[in-house]
Amino acid sequence: MPQLVVIRHGESLWNQENRFTGWVDIDLAEKGIQEAIQGGRALKEQKLQFDIVFTSVLKRAIKSLNLVLNELDQHWLPVIKSWRLNERHYGELQGLNKSEMAEMHGEEQVKVWRRSFDTPPPFLKKEDPRHPSHDPRYKNVDPSELPAGESLKLTASRFQPFWEAEIVPKLRAGQNVLIVAHGNSLRALMMILEKLSPEQIMEVNMPTGIPLLYDLDANLKIQDKKFIGDEATVQKAIASVEAQGKKK
Amino acid sequence: MPQLVVIRHGESLWNQENRFTGWVDIDLAEKGIQEAIQGGRALKEQKLQFDIVFTSVLKRAIKSLNLVLNELDQHWLPVIKSWRLNERHYGELQGLNKSEMAEMHGEEQVKVWRRSFDTPPPFLKKEDPRHPSHDPRYKNVDPSELPAGESLKLTASRFQPFWEAEIVPKLRAGQNVLIVAHGNSLRALMMILEKLSPEQIMEVNMPTGIPLLYDLDANLKIQDKKFIGDEATVQKAIASVEAQGKKK
Repeated sequence: MPQLVVIRHGESLWNQENRFTGWVDIDLAEKGIQEAIQGGRALKEQKLQFDIVFTSVLKRAIKSLNLVLNELDQHWLPVIKSWRLNERHYGELQGLNKSEMAEMHGEEQVKVWRRSFDTPPPFLKKEDPRHPSHDPRYKNVDPSELPAGESLKLTASRFQPFWEAEIVPKLRAGQNVLIVAHGNSLRALMMILEKLSPEQIMEVNMPTGIPLLYDLDANLKIQDKKFIGDEATVQKAIASVEAQGKKK
Repeated sequence: MPQLVVIRHGESLWNQENRFTGWVDIDLAEKGIQEAIQGGRALKEQKLQFDIVFTSVLKRAIKSLNLVLNELDQHWLPVIKSWRLNERHYGELQGLNKSEMAEMHGEEQVKVWRRSFDTPPPFLKKEDPRHPSHDPRYKNVDPSELPAGESLKLTASRFQPFWEAEIVPKLRAGQNVLIVAHGNSLRALMMILEKLSPEQIMEVNMPTGIPLLYDLDANLKIQDKKFIGDEATVQKAIASVEAQGKKK
């Protein structure tokens, strides 16, 4: 039966500065490097063996993945990188920290952007040099598909075709799949796989660097779901997910 | 016009112990790490931009590649890993150092294995745990194609179909291609691309970690060929290649 493991990349430099990162290609912080190494070690202890790996085209995910593969000593695994696994695109908000944002747009508006499932941030203009159409990594993507700002709903919409065309067939063929991605692209995945409502997914927040293992059946029904790590790490992950639920 | 850059991975731990490595998955030595970083920096200074990357399924090549991509800040590039870019398979000789080999097989025989184009080493038996059919990384390869020991001629024969099916079409489409591989898989490539005879290719030996750039035309005819690096590095690379020619 197929196994799917998802890992949210370790903390980046902008996580630490509390800036909306989105598609800006910010590097891992030292803490994030350590988180990825710990995640890889936890997988190794479970003796998990993968067939294929998926990640985004952003280096905080790719570097986390390389650190995980190094711990697993499975450098040779095929790795597919896709923009459809990128973080949610935060449009004009990218690069701003919380207080800058509150100053520019008001506290109430910022809350809406953070907590709403389907309200996108202000879009980047096409001629803005930060628009993805100016970045060589997206030059083979149909420009009409490139986002200039996304709600979680829009993130899920651009993730879903990739999930169905590239990931599901591997799982159905019985392959074990590892995905190293971002808070919101993993939310999109969980929403689809766990059949969560918009309200439910807004209460889920993946902890960084802690592998989440799904044991699936041949129809991709979830047989078991658990965080992988030592007892303390797993308890912390569960508590963190629950606390976020209660906050709302 | 397409550009092709080839890099031989930096020194591995077994290079330093003078052991025949072949398909044994030995890690980079610290010197090899530094060589890969230097190679990446040299490429960055030339402002080279790639479209796709190819490497083997051995970690000394993959890690060298990751270090190069890190210097280029092009982590997002698609990377195709194939066993057909692996080092020459040294069969029963893998893991032996020169003096162990001379003791077991005699000095004369060892010279033949090192210097002959088409004499393979003694093959590993199918039931030998070191045979590639027992390694999960080759489980999707047709077992009849997996070598148990290769001459340079056999290495070139298994590289050529991959070159023609996967690499040539990218170059013909005008894409810039980076290949990070091994001494003998790169010799196979040079033999094909430069139309060298068996005698000529036996006199060529790629230096580790120094990028070699081919400017090609639309028919993949070589317009220019040069090592990339500072003056001293390039001179050393050229001298090293020439000295090896004279030795013979």
